[in-house]
Amino acid sequence: MTVSAPKRSLNIDNINPHIKVAKYAVRGELATRSEKYRAQLAKGEGKDLPFDTVISANIGNPQQLDQKPITFFRQVASLLENPLLLENEGALEKSFGYKKDVIERAKWLLESVKSVGAYSQSNGAPGIRQSVAEYIERRDGYPSSPDNIYLSAGASSGVNALLHIICSSPETGLLIPIPQYPLYTASLAVLNAKCVPYYLDESKAWGTDITAIKDALANARSEGTDVRAIVIINPGNPTGASLSTEDMASVLEFAANEGLVVMADEVYQTNVFEGEFTSFKKVLRDLQKSDANKDGKFDALELASLHSISKGMVGECGHRGGYFELVGFDEEVVAELYKFISIQLCPPVIGQCMVEMMVHPPKEGDPSYPLYKQEYDNIFANLQKRANALYDAFREMEGVECQSPQGAMYLFPKINLPSGAVSAAKAAGKTPDEFYSSKLLDATGVCVVPGNGFGQKEGTMHFRTTFLAPGTDWVGRIMKFHKSFMDEYRDAKTNGVNGHA
Amino acid sequence: MTVSAPKRSLNIDNINPHIKVAKYAVRGELATRSEKYRAQLAKGEGKDLPFDTVISANIGNPQQLDQKPITFFRQVASLLENPLLLENEGALEKSFGYKKDVIERAKWLLESVKSVGAYSQSNGAPGIRQSVAEYIERRDGYPSSPDNIYLSAGASSGVNALLHIICSSPETGLLIPIPQYPLYTASLAVLNAKCVPYYLDESKAWGTDITAIKDALANARSEGTDVRAIVIINPGNPTGASLSTEDMASVLEFAANEGLVVMADEVYQTNVFEGEFTSFKKVLRDLQKSDANKDGKFDALELASLHSISKGMVGECGHRGGYFELVGFDEEVVAELYKFISIQLCPPVIGQCMVEMMVHPPKEGDPSYPLYKQEYDNIFANLQKRANALYDAFREMEGVECQSPQGAMYLFPKINLPSGAVSAAKAAGKTPDEFYSSKLLDATGVCVVPGNGFGQKEGTMHFRTTFLAPGTDWVGRIMKFHKSFMDEYRDAKTNGVNGHA
Repeated sequence: MTVSAPKRSLNIDNINPHIKVAKYAVRGELATRSEKYRAQLAKGEGKDLPFDTVISANIGNPQQLDQKPITFFRQVASLLENPLLLENEGALEKSFGYKKDVIERAKWLLESVKSVGAYSQSNGAPGIRQSVAEYIERRDGYPSSPDNIYLSAGASSGVNALLHIICSSPETGLLIPIPQYPLYTASLAVLNAKCVPYYLDESKAWGTDITAIKDALANARSEGTDVRAIVIINPGNPTGASLSTEDMASVLEFAANEGLVVMADEVYQTNVFEGEFTSFKKVLRDLQKSDANKDGKFDALELASLHSISKGMVGECGHRGGYFELVGFDEEVVAELYKFISIQLCPPVIGQCMVEMMVHPPKEGDPSYPLYKQEYDNIFANLQKRANALYDAFREMEGVECQSPQGAMYLFPKINLPSGAVSAAKAAGKTPDEFYSSKLLDATGVCVVPGNGFGQKEGTMHFRTTFLAPGTDWVGRIMKFHKSFMDEYRDAKTNGVNGHA
Repeated sequence: MTVSAPKRSLNIDNINPHIKVAKYAVRGELATRSEKYRAQLAKGEGKDLPFDTVISANIGNPQQLDQKPITFFRQVASLLENPLLLENEGALEKSFGYKKDVIERAKWLLESVKSVGAYSQSNGAPGIRQSVAEYIERRDGYPSSPDNIYLSAGASSGVNALLHIICSSPETGLLIPIPQYPLYTASLAVLNAKCVPYYLDESKAWGTDITAIKDALANARSEGTDVRAIVIINPGNPTGASLSTEDMASVLEFAANEGLVVMADEVYQTNVFEGEFTSFKKVLRDLQKSDANKDGKFDALELASLHSISKGMVGECGHRGGYFELVGFDEEVVAELYKFISIQLCPPVIGQCMVEMMVHPPKEGDPSYPLYKQEYDNIFANLQKRANALYDAFREMEGVECQSPQGAMYLFPKINLPSGAVSAAKAAGKTPDEFYSSKLLDATGVCVVPGNGFGQKEGTMHFRTTFLAPGTDWVGRIMKFHKSFMDEYRDAKTNGVNGHA
């Protein structure tokens, strides 16, 4: 008996075409396959697989791997979830070691939000926004107002809101660094707006190249694109690069001259291994006070900077918390943004509370400070150690070039593959880096993201891996795979590797 | 000294025009003003105000008012937030009364998600989706698969994802009930798609009128609108109506005949005061087995049904949890939907856990059942009592007509205002219901939403109020205001009220 397929209303040819063109490789085909392997292994069905664990190095998800949450945050959160626990402070202290500052913070947050089960204001609870503003003031040495702070469900949701406001037609364009975290290109695709790529300079540790940015703008404008904004990710994702304040000032000057909004994705602001993090807000305020602002060109610059509880030493991805600060935006524009975020009501309130604790952790002298400090420093040191170990491994691998780890949670090595591999990839209908990453997953259970998921210069190949996974076994698996891959595809005839051209 | 306003990149004339036309009155001007009053009163600055508390009856936010969270949910959540508490089960039991099933549930959920601080799969943790599928099976008596369940950040986020997939061009239209929860019209506006309104029948307790729906479809199609789907809110928001299974079957048959997707917003499925809730999924499965399906027309019907932890007796709005189930959708379409939700990574994980507890609460014989049952029943009884008290008040008020409370959290009385009030509203540049609601807020501190925020038949006037606020004082304030409003604007000459025509 043959059954004809039912006729459905929606099919691949009539749904939203802008979603179809969007790409989001971080959770793409390889990630899905890796989850299948993980499920097989969990059920004891994966006996034929050449590995016994799956390592999800495709996404910065610290607590799915090894990282423990910071105790202070979670103790407070437990009291926010069940305020009845506060009725027996003695037992909290005696049986569970809750300190006075944990209890005080929970009480204060409960006063601010009333209940974590209640909707807050669309832009977040006022007390928490106040706390964020105070953090920014301490960090930058410049005032910040809670009225300019918008709490969000992770930085992604903030980016989504900002892009929704900025993108007004198919001609709208935003300058996006390449390589980039694909949230930006995916969101622009969904909004039917244009990504105007500017290439980061791999030869200068993935720094910004202002000439490349100017050329990208000029080209886009000559093609009729209405370029509105420039996105900067600092520290970089996937590159891990940490920008110098000189580079940041150049970008701001460029934006001021060209009338562009600056969107600064600063979610890795505490993941910095070389030098110190400086915010775009601080560099902007410095410029506004400086001689460079004689003509007042920096006064009207619009800057949106984003932060998140998902990264840093906090790593609370699952709680979906973050914020953005607006500087210099027009009031009427802000009112429309507020209306837009209201349609989704409010960010998760417990995530808002986590934001508060991230920006206002225990400080020296507080009862919870010693443990907090120890946990924080330990996570930081571990990340750095793992980054360096992975970097050292990459340096030993044939045809692999990698920038030293400066920040964020990723390394983004360049892989120069033999022409045999390039041909084999072509035959398999894949790009060479997809081919390599796919084989890596099948052989080792290590899931990385091919460079083309972030964008890369034509003819170059990369992959992004987090350095969050513990131990060295998985790094060994990558090295062993790489050697056998190179052995298999090395082109004896040309006796060389592709990709150096 | 005059300072010229700085020239900004973004202004009200060049941002996304689709956001500008979107309207979302639930958090609109009145809500903002009510928050200002609340802040004034909190600072002791509101001495001149003619009220001493603000009553936010504009939004279904139970825990901002009087409703306490259900103990079982919050005890489990506290353990999820701080799993270290599980290291001293004895103290949890002795000092805090945590029962065995609380501890077991927390351990099971932690196994499912590993950490509430980790990203889950984009559609939610597999174990939780399984639990939702089992709930749907118990509820409907028909199978449900976890593969068809998508956890979401509240139902709003699910609606947003579904509309994103369905809306493919400015010609796309969706049939939307009027009055409706403005999430739908606002989201369609942002997506630059068309709302095809169909009017609910106030004279039949706000039921669906299939003739009106057919006419709306025919009109829209004749104007070139590509109508793709019909949205049903049951129980209704703002109407509070509860549909009969006959009405539901008519809608499904209509959708099957016309090739429309059915979006069933069922977030108030446990807020039912008259009769019993029946899901669209159950009615569809019944139809598929019945003679009405001889030609197989119901086999291909696509149904998306949504649920939430924000409403019901749970009322955990701030946790942003919900789910939707897809029935009959094409696989390729589903893959695009999955990619779309992946861009925002995952719904809040603690919210996902709350969904699990909502669909799988303590059952008879479990140690936590007696308290759970008592709390649940108490909330239900309170809501019903308050609904009836408010309904009784409306029945006493001159020119006010109101359907008896059937479900949801709202009453949506029709107000027949004197022509003097209509003229005064016009002079103030407001619609009559805006004018009335605005005066109500200023006089009493009670914030409601004017009917035009939801849509209403031309020439009729309504407002929506929740019945969540405790006590009777605020109802008395409304009654007193109403009398003085009517006295002020009653048109002695015509000796009648407007709006009965």
